[in-house]
Formats: sequence, structure tokens, C-alpha cells
Amino acid sequence: MRILGIDPGLRTTGFGVIDAVGQTRVYVASGCIRSGEGSLPARLKVLLEGISEVCQRYQPQQSAIEQVFVNVNPQSTLLLGQARGAAISALVLANLPVAEYTALQVKQAVVGNGHAAKEQVSHMVQRLLSLSGEPQSDAADALACALAHANHATGGLANIGMKSRRGRWVSI
Amino acid sequence: MRILGIDPGLRTTGFGVIDAVGQTRVYVASGCIRSGEGSLPARLKVLLEGISEVCQRYQPQQSAIEQVFVNVNPQSTLLLGQARGAAISALVLANLPVAEYTALQVKQAVVGNGHAAKEQVSHMVQRLLSLSGEPQSDAADALACALAHANHATGGLANIGMKSRRGRWVSI
Repeated sequence: MRILGIDPGLRTTGFGVIDAVGQTRVYVASGCIRSGEGSLPARLKVLLEGISEVCQRYQPQQSAIEQVFVNVNPQSTLLLGQARGAAISALVLANLPVAEYTALQVKQAVVGNGHAAKEQVSHMVQRLLSLSGEPQSDAADALACALAHANHATGGLANIGMKSRRGRWVSI
Repeated sequence: MRILGIDPGLRTTGFGVIDAVGQTRVYVASGCIRSGEGSLPARLKVLLEGISEVCQRYQPQQSAIEQVFVNVNPQSTLLLGQARGAAISALVLANLPVAEYTALQVKQAVVGNGHAAKEQVSHMVQRLLSLSGEPQSDAADALACALAHANHATGGLANIGMKSRRGRWVSI
């Protein structure tokens, strides 16, 4: 099963594609779509077309998108909402089922701790997908979202990490 | 010039299509897209496909969309933002230029008073487009947005209504 994970944002939207075969997770691709400095419709168009291109190129069968935080600034919340709306539009246009996960669920699944720091998520993504380096932050979050969905969809463990004897979370 | 006006909402999105020839405004179509009770991606899909269908059927050359209010409830703001993002996605996918107007600008253009009541907007839309009855509320707002854009795009008067000798705003 090929999964596309999306971390939506108005400036930068991260994407990550993985293959999930049984309990194996294989990295396919990841990156960022930068919406530039144009008008809101122009920026949403860049986002929409970028995700559509990713869907065409990598042909995922499922998609997962992070639920975004309500910002302290209502105007930012509105802008972020619009970016997420455009991202979901691109996914449904590609006929993909769209699963939604909160940041807490993603962190719980990937790190084993819903309140893990961003660096821990990035580190675990690198380990779980055997990447040679740590992925860029937005791409890491998107890959983490895809990993969380892989875990959920394959009816796997409650989290991908498991507790070692010393009580720390390690990848399996 | 054929203009599609959109009043975005997560539950109900109004649309209105008008033709603007010089200072003449002709009603073409209007209505509402109801997104139903499904998941957020499913509702955004209904909205996206509904607007795409309107674009295909009526072939507008321009589009105008209302800028939405920031709600007291941040979660509602986020939902509304996502609906607006999907609506703009449908417009840019149809290769339409998208103009944005605040409710104040729309009311100013149609009623001549940026703080006019909803009923006044609906009433003026009915008069300006010579409709036999008052349009449904969301459709009226969408038509008003299209009228505001027609006014702006044709470089017309500051507002479509003009002050009569008695100091009330009437249609011209």
C-alpha cells in the first residue's frame, strides 16, 4: 500500500510518500511545496497543482493529512484553513481516501509519545525509514503522518515504536 | 463579461452568475451547494465538484468570492477557511481569475452602505437583476458579490446604487 502524507501550511506544505508492506515501511519520496508570494488564490493554486503533481507521479492509494492547530491569531487560522482546504481538494480530486490525524496521534504513533518534540519525530522518521539524513522539517512531519496512517491502516501496533527494556521508545 | 460570484460556507455555499454588458447586469443563474453530513474531506469534495459543475455549465470568464469573517469560535474559523480554500481551488482549476471582496465592499457596491442589513442586500440584488422574487440568502450574497465585481471590473461608479433626491439609495 502506497501512502501520501501531507503536512499543510500556507507558506510551505510538506509531502511524504511511503510504501507499507506488512510491518515494513519503505521510503519513496518527500519534499516541500512553497506557495510563493502571490495573491491567496495564486498561492492556493501552486499548492493544489503541486499536490496533484505528486499524486500523478507517485500514484499513492491512500492519503493522510495532519489536523492543523487553531492559531492564536484568528487571521492565521483562517489562512491555514484555506491552505488545508486546497490540499484536501487536491487529494479528493485524485480520488484518494483522506484520513485525518492530529499531531498528538502522529507523535504517539511514530515516537510513542504524543507530546514528543519536533526533533524526536524527525529522528524517528529517519530511523523508521532508514534515511541517510534527517529530512527537512515539513517533509518529516508529512512522512510521520504517512507512517501513522500505515500503522493505523495495517491494523498494527498502537504505535510503531515500542518500549525497550530501559523504558525508552525504539523503532521495531 | 460573465461573472461567477461565490459566498463560501462549510454547510452551504451560495453561487450566482450574471452577465455584465456595459452598465447592464443580467441574471443568469444562482443557487446553493449543500455539503451534507459526511466527513470533512467528503464535504469539501461536494463543494469542489459543485462549483466545478457550475463553471462547466455556465462558462464564466471571471469570478469573485467573499472574504469570510473570522468567527468567535476558532474551530469554526478553521472549518470556514477550509471551505473557502476548496471553493477557491475549484475556481482556479477552472482557470478563472479570482477577485476577493469583503462583505463591506460588497454592501457598499450593491446597497451604497457598507453596513447595510442582509435584507437590504437581498432586496437590492432583486431590483438590480429584475428578479421576480427575493433570492435565497446565500445565493443573494453570491449574486451581490458578482455585482460588486461587475462594478469594479467595468470601472463603473463607486457603487451600483445611487442617491436619489430624497437621500435614499436606489438602483440605476
